[in-house]
Amino acid sequence: MSPAPTARLMDGAGLARRIVERTAERAAALTRRTGTQPCLATVLVGDDPASVTYVRMKRARCEKAGIRSRHIALPAATTTAELVAAVDALSQDPQVHGILLQHPVGPHIDERAAFEAIAPEKDVDGVTTASFAAMSFGLPGFVSCTPGGIMRLLDHYDVDLAGRHAVVVGRSAILGRPVGMLLLGRDATVTYCHSRTRDVTAVVRQADVVVAAVGRPRFIRGEDVKPGAVVVDAGYNPGNIGDVDFEAARTRASLITPVPGGVGPMTIAVLLDQTVEAAARGIHPPGV
Amino acid sequence: MSPAPTARLMDGAGLARRIVERTAERAAALTRRTGTQPCLATVLVGDDPASVTYVRMKRARCEKAGIRSRHIALPAATTTAELVAAVDALSQDPQVHGILLQHPVGPHIDERAAFEAIAPEKDVDGVTTASFAAMSFGLPGFVSCTPGGIMRLLDHYDVDLAGRHAVVVGRSAILGRPVGMLLLGRDATVTYCHSRTRDVTAVVRQADVVVAAVGRPRFIRGEDVKPGAVVVDAGYNPGNIGDVDFEAARTRASLITPVPGGVGPMTIAVLLDQTVEAAARGIHPPGV
Repeated sequence: MSPAPTARLMDGAGLARRIVERTAERAAALTRRTGTQPCLATVLVGDDPASVTYVRMKRARCEKAGIRSRHIALPAATTTAELVAAVDALSQDPQVHGILLQHPVGPHIDERAAFEAIAPEKDVDGVTTASFAAMSFGLPGFVSCTPGGIMRLLDHYDVDLAGRHAVVVGRSAILGRPVGMLLLGRDATVTYCHSRTRDVTAVVRQADVVVAAVGRPRFIRGEDVKPGAVVVDAGYNPGNIGDVDFEAARTRASLITPVPGGVGPMTIAVLLDQTVEAAARGIHPPGV
Repeated sequence: MSPAPTARLMDGAGLARRIVERTAERAAALTRRTGTQPCLATVLVGDDPASVTYVRMKRARCEKAGIRSRHIALPAATTTAELVAAVDALSQDPQVHGILLQHPVGPHIDERAAFEAIAPEKDVDGVTTASFAAMSFGLPGFVSCTPGGIMRLLDHYDVDLAGRHAVVVGRSAILGRPVGMLLLGRDATVTYCHSRTRDVTAVVRQADVVVAAVGRPRFIRGEDVKPGAVVVDAGYNPGNIGDVDFEAARTRASLITPVPGGVGPMTIAVLLDQTVEAAARGIHPPGV
């Protein structure tokens, strides 16, 4: 007989829905008050099917929340200079309040240069170095959407972070690194593990909070979860499989995010929320 | 009978001397070739005796290395706006290649705003958010001097970092946070401990590499050092006492930095080296 689940589920889908509802209300009020609708520009290079799907979904969610979207589709052969110019034009355009550059952009493009062309005040996806530094030092600015969504989930479930050991598995520029910095800013003891870590299992076993962001299906085994730990699965692998062995982990964790319905919906909710926030700061009503 | 020391000393003073010699040669060659001497601007607010001493020492080391220094002394009552304006003027001044704002600047000043007024290409002390992001993502830019000095020491002693567990004790914006990011960039598994960490001892005991940057005398006890670990003491407390109990730790470590003569001299060497590098990039010879 296998052990019964002990973990409470962290309902990202439900929390995201409430955030998006509030965001939609705010977008509507802003549009009424200023005559300008918040606008997110999406930029897609090439026609990678997953990227096409992601962008389409994000645009649909914008529309539903009363956020206008403007889509820039660029051919796969776009150069770095052309992409930077396109993003730069959006950064200059007063009608655009937020910019989302769908990534990956293709190996021939300098992705960092393209990200840096996003004006920090329009970086609602939190991908610029300015946003990373803001997250790292607790300065004003936008957060990377998945890390931001994770923090909102942890807060919603009253997870005490101060002095707890948070282990981040993965160190990408838009997920692992920034979520570690946000956790550190909340007084957690933070460990970054990654592909070169010698004994990930031994580290994860010590974690009070695990953030799995490695992109390998069921990489975190149930037996590696410390009893009572909080498990956040930011992985999303083919077949709706997370980075955590959910069924096994939920018999040991105190709180756990499901996949799907955990971190994923929170990511989009933060994107929409930050877009409306950028618009609220960026729209100057007529006569002002 | 107490155990014999096992650790080899990391001779920061000696390595720093060699770096400064090369830097001085490079400064002289640059001055000969361009007719312009590399110049570091130092900015000091108020008359805190320790800060006055630090700035004086840094200027003397500049002069000895053939780097001109220009000193801006501002009264303790300087406002944030006044300091930002002073730093901004130096950022604009083509005769100035590097800028060092001595900190702390006093509680009434927004230190971050003052740091951000330093043009990234003159941020030879590595204090801007742009420099932090560059360190975090392995992008071109200057490093914070003490973290940069620590990495050079580790490299000089051929410390293998990939997959090793590096524990950083302390999370300041110019030491703990950036050195952790540099170690992560070199494929170490990195843990940040700090004042809110529940059991620092338990974490430090697992470290293959310890970086002590907490500012508390002998905070790391010898018994907490894993046998064979590499111990870097970036602490500097009154009476030339480090953050590590040196005599006890050297009986267990494989490599250890003394205090003084370890990390301290490396910090200044990196400052001088980066100033000449900034000058080499920033000086445009007549007619070019």
